[in-house]
Amino acid sequence: MNNYKVAVIPGDGIGVDVIKAAWQVLELSAAKHHFSLQGEWFPWSCDYYLEHGEMMPEDGIATLRQFNAILLGAVGWPQRVPDNVSLHGLLLPIRKQFDLFANVRPHRLLPGVRGPLREENFDILCIRENTEGEYSGAGGRIHQGTPQEVAVETSIFTRQGVERILRYGFEAARQRSGRLASVTKSNAQKYTMVMWDEITDEIAKEYPDVKVTRYHIDAIAARFVMQPESLDVVVASNLFGDILTDLGAAIQGGLGYAASANLNPDPAMPSMFEPVHGSAPDIAGQNIANPLAAIWSGALMLEHLGEQAAAQGIMQALERVTAEIPLNQTQSTAAITDAVLRLI
Amino acid sequence: MNNYKVAVIPGDGIGVDVIKAAWQVLELSAAKHHFSLQGEWFPWSCDYYLEHGEMMPEDGIATLRQFNAILLGAVGWPQRVPDNVSLHGLLLPIRKQFDLFANVRPHRLLPGVRGPLREENFDILCIRENTEGEYSGAGGRIHQGTPQEVAVETSIFTRQGVERILRYGFEAARQRSGRLASVTKSNAQKYTMVMWDEITDEIAKEYPDVKVTRYHIDAIAARFVMQPESLDVVVASNLFGDILTDLGAAIQGGLGYAASANLNPDPAMPSMFEPVHGSAPDIAGQNIANPLAAIWSGALMLEHLGEQAAAQGIMQALERVTAEIPLNQTQSTAAITDAVLRLI
Ligand SMILES: CC(C)[C@H](C(=O)O)[C@@H](O)C(=O)O
Ligand SMILES: CC(C)[C@H](C(=O)O)[C@@H](O)C(=O)O
Repeated sequence: MNNYKVAVIPGDGIGVDVIKAAWQVLELSAAKHHFSLQGEWFPWSCDYYLEHGEMMPEDGIATLRQFNAILLGAVGWPQRVPDNVSLHGLLLPIRKQFDLFANVRPHRLLPGVRGPLREENFDILCIRENTEGEYSGAGGRIHQGTPQEVAVETSIFTRQGVERILRYGFEAARQRSGRLASVTKSNAQKYTMVMWDEITDEIAKEYPDVKVTRYHIDAIAARFVMQPESLDVVVASNLFGDILTDLGAAIQGGLGYAASANLNPDPAMPSMFEPVHGSAPDIAGQNIANPLAAIWSGALMLEHLGEQAAAQGIMQALERVTAEIPLNQTQSTAAITDAVLRLI
Repeated sequence: MNNYKVAVIPGDGIGVDVIKAAWQVLELSAAKHHFSLQGEWFPWSCDYYLEHGEMMPEDGIATLRQFNAILLGAVGWPQRVPDNVSLHGLLLPIRKQFDLFANVRPHRLLPGVRGPLREENFDILCIRENTEGEYSGAGGRIHQGTPQEVAVETSIFTRQGVERILRYGFEAARQRSGRLASVTKSNAQKYTMVMWDEITDEIAKEYPDVKVTRYHIDAIAARFVMQPESLDVVVASNLFGDILTDLGAAIQGGLGYAASANLNPDPAMPSMFEPVHGSAPDIAGQNIANPLAAIWSGALMLEHLGEQAAAQGIMQALERVTAEIPLNQTQSTAAITDAVLRLI
């Protein structure tokens, strides 16, 4: 019987609510499909920070390295800890230290879900670079607080980093429709984004069967709402992927539906799975957070671990739930979770 | 009789088509409202570049300085001149050299226009910083073409630049609903964006009557499609404003409807007015480009020049045209323009 060690980090706010839900579904699915999930829970969060002065212990990353995967809820509670502290102390180091370079986010309108667009054909797979670029964290401020103050922030893109995420995108496109959209802002950013475009053109030669189209971030954001059916796989930098995936989440019915995988294809590294939504502290603990994104993220985790049948079972259950139950404000976290559990 | 000197730069592609249309409307409006517009046309464009090796002459900026305003069509023809060359050679220098720091873009569903959202309440005024930030053009590439290649691009924000655009935003909010959204990505970009947030909080104290809310760019992009009615005036950096205004344009029915003003409140500097859309070379010269964005931009120009009644007359004509004429693929540029002209 396969046994997987999973580090579970509920984090802040509704992260706790939705991870509890997702874990119930994962455990039941494991039982049905004859594998075992050994979860270890870590309380790393803003609460933890207020007590210990750090978001996770010194050896946090070393600890996580021993797991097969990480399931994370949400990080951040800006009223108590500045976001840039909490995120640079937990979420972003996990992505960077394990080199989880492919942030894969499926955006699809599940059956029965009513999105904000008139057009209901929406099925886009976003592949977001997850370790460098606009999130490099390089920069500084000078003459702080004076009228002469200047702040700089440097995006750093490596050829190796851009090549591997683009290749990941081309491979993903090959497995879907064969269409890939590559996103830059090379008409205004003439170093990093021009390099990205050049590498796109180079790699395209290795994939003559993939039709790649280059878009600027502004144009493709417009296309998400005007002609989403013209898009299939979208590959973008850290920041542009961040923006497009929140937009994709909104179009698929809201952040409560958007799942994500932070992947390093190397099985020696623990990949990390998390809903796209944030911690929403104002509604935490009230049994009203939508757990579907977290459950879907759990399915992505099982898929990555090689438990395809179990992952498919969860997705089928999710789709029956959205098709059959009118999901609205009155459905509690527990009620949705129970409905999924009944169908596993 | 007031006389205004206007530099007209049709630029590339459909820029030529729509500026011709807008200029006809502006001339008729001037005649009706007893002022005169003295237009001088400049052929600066990618064609010009291919002939002269530069997008505009050496003294281009000095020449434009003598005008009261600039009306611009669109710049770029990437199949012939790389975008970063054409834009850094004409559009971006105009914005920067005249310090046109406020890029003001009204996004509103005109009567009769069918947008992509089910929700039809859409009226957002975007104020985009237009001279610095992510478009600073500072950066470089090392080990080019080798596996070790690294590209960097530095966003530079000055306190003075951030303060003035935020103040512009607060003033605009005061004149509308009193609600202002300030956009950053301060949870991931801890230098420039944290400074922006701090300055927002400082200036907010001077405007106790304005309710300011801070959003991250990803969250506000989602909000544009999920709850646009919750937004009124939005102030953002160069890049974030760029993305949000294309999204806003899409939601208001398409790029063919989105107008913009690039403003420096100092009357000694020529402000510049342009539709948000690009040059779309594939449909240039075919009499099918939607001229409404260019005409609306012309109205913004008259408003800036102090000809409020004329500006209002154009907007009323525009709104009657969209309400009464079914605007679809079969309406030619000339037909739409004639309809507006008849109502002026
Ligand atoms: C919380 C924030 C730093 C994060 C990001 O931008 O990466 C989030 O928005 C996401 O998309 O996972
Ligand atoms: C053409 C491009 C450089 C420009 C920009 O990003 O500023 C355009 O998209 C705009 O919004 O005016």
